[in-house]
Amino acid sequence: MQNTELKFIEIIKNSLSDSSYLGDDCAYLKDLNLSVSSDLLIEGVHFDFKFITPYFLGKKALKVNISDILASGSKPLYATVSLSGKLSKNFIKEFYCGINDCADEFGVKIIGGDLSTGEKIGISICIIGDCRGRNISSRKNAKEGYLLALCGNFGASAQGLKMLLNNQKEENEFTKAHIDPILQFECSKEISEKCKKPYAMMDSSDGLINALEWISMSSKVGFELEFDKIPYIVGTKREEVLFGGEDYSLVCVLDETDFKNVNIRGLKVVGRATLGRNILIDGKEVKNEKKEEFLHFD
Amino acid sequence: MQNTELKFIEIIKNSLSDSSYLGDDCAYLKDLNLSVSSDLLIEGVHFDFKFITPYFLGKKALKVNISDILASGSKPLYATVSLSGKLSKNFIKEFYCGINDCADEFGVKIIGGDLSTGEKIGISICIIGDCRGRNISSRKNAKEGYLLALCGNFGASAQGLKMLLNNQKEENEFTKAHIDPILQFECSKEISEKCKKPYAMMDSSDGLINALEWISMSSKVGFELEFDKIPYIVGTKREEVLFGGEDYSLVCVLDETDFKNVNIRGLKVVGRATLGRNILIDGKEVKNEKKEEFLHFD
Repeated sequence: MQNTELKFIEIIKNSLSDSSYLGDDCAYLKDLNLSVSSDLLIEGVHFDFKFITPYFLGKKALKVNISDILASGSKPLYATVSLSGKLSKNFIKEFYCGINDCADEFGVKIIGGDLSTGEKIGISICIIGDCRGRNISSRKNAKEGYLLALCGNFGASAQGLKMLLNNQKEENEFTKAHIDPILQFECSKEISEKCKKPYAMMDSSDGLINALEWISMSSKVGFELEFDKIPYIVGTKREEVLFGGEDYSLVCVLDETDFKNVNIRGLKVVGRATLGRNILIDGKEVKNEKKEEFLHFD
Repeated sequence: MQNTELKFIEIIKNSLSDSSYLGDDCAYLKDLNLSVSSDLLIEGVHFDFKFITPYFLGKKALKVNISDILASGSKPLYATVSLSGKLSKNFIKEFYCGINDCADEFGVKIIGGDLSTGEKIGISICIIGDCRGRNISSRKNAKEGYLLALCGNFGASAQGLKMLLNNQKEENEFTKAHIDPILQFECSKEISEKCKKPYAMMDSSDGLINALEWISMSSKVGFELEFDKIPYIVGTKREEVLFGGEDYSLVCVLDETDFKNVNIRGLKVVGRATLGRNILIDGKEVKNEKKEEFLHFD
């Protein structure tokens, strides 16, 4: 959990007359039956052109936002894409080709955005999801005894980033996981359509333990899980499996009966939500000691 | 008209499988009966902390986005606010107080956003408007013979900015127009509720002539207007009245019968849409020779 970020969010909540929409990665607009999410990617903070081309940057930027919509259990529909920085025709062309390929893959329409000059490249995407026929998740919805189930690999992206930082030139499954992550589109659909009871779901954009800590704090539960049940690519270091971000795998905490109705092969039960507030892996408490990597605020 | 921006938009349109939502400041989502718009504000490009406090920056950033929704003829509902830069607690507090005061004034709910570190302050807002019961504008909708009507002052903000750049310290109506612009909420509502026929409407965020050029290009019409009928504060220079941006006044091109049903005192008829493609003021052609102020692309 990143303390500075938490403090900033607290200040924002206190500044707003109505902060009831904040708290999950997506806002759920009940009156419109829509979910909305917005994510920033800043050059030098979230990405580095040494490791990613404009095409894959476009693709990944949209994926990161789609992933938030999937974690809410809604269906991605529309996105705005805004871009600032020292823009060139070639950059814009390649970047938007990546955006478009990702949009087409997931059935998203690009409906607008803005362009501006600036020093570093900044990407801001806002995405709208359809909640009709879906049970929408919330970090607050986990209950003691619920199953903890994971879908997708954990730690591959962070391990891939380390390889890239160490000058790994050839693509492998780790670097690929970092550059062009896999989204859990079907799992999100299946869970949100089949679950009858409230459930919690987050993506692993900031790592598995980070997601568990958020759900723990919001739902007032703890977790017990077994490390060997967590899905990861053989060779991924334990630290990355637990704390590595940017995999966009799903972390679901759901009722056991609901789980039985969900038919997704890749969804693995790894543990349970508990009454206590701590996170126990193989009986030992784990805390997020990851540095504040993406939020070096003053 | 800014050539670089036009070229970039053309590249984006060509990169997308479906670019039908682009072309107006707002995207109109017929299936959801919503409009969506997104605007960036970057430090050093769109604003300078020498002239604006974090509170008024927050207020203005949201106003700029609300103005796009008003120009579409829809009712602002929800907004996400993302912020990057060297953020401090005080900055966030003041900025979001400005956001909140503006949100409360116009009935907008803040539903989320993102925070990131970065070099300069960057603000990205995405706003959703309600189109129910409203006739939604498009730049393509102007027709020969339609009236050209304006609501709000023109040129005051640009003249105010020049005063600020010249070290004007005391507030006056020009500097106020720049720091805390007036939005035409009632005019937007009245026009979109009363107009039966298609109409074109834009805000004057990039100046009067820029708006007329966009409508001219999109609707294939020209304009004839009289300078003395344009609403401006006495003492505003002619150049600012025609080319100065950031007033967020409304430029409407609408059917004459529809105009008679619109009951807004401040809405002034200044001319008509014509068959030719040029813009004639008091019989003389005018072109936008404003420099590419906000888009210094490579």
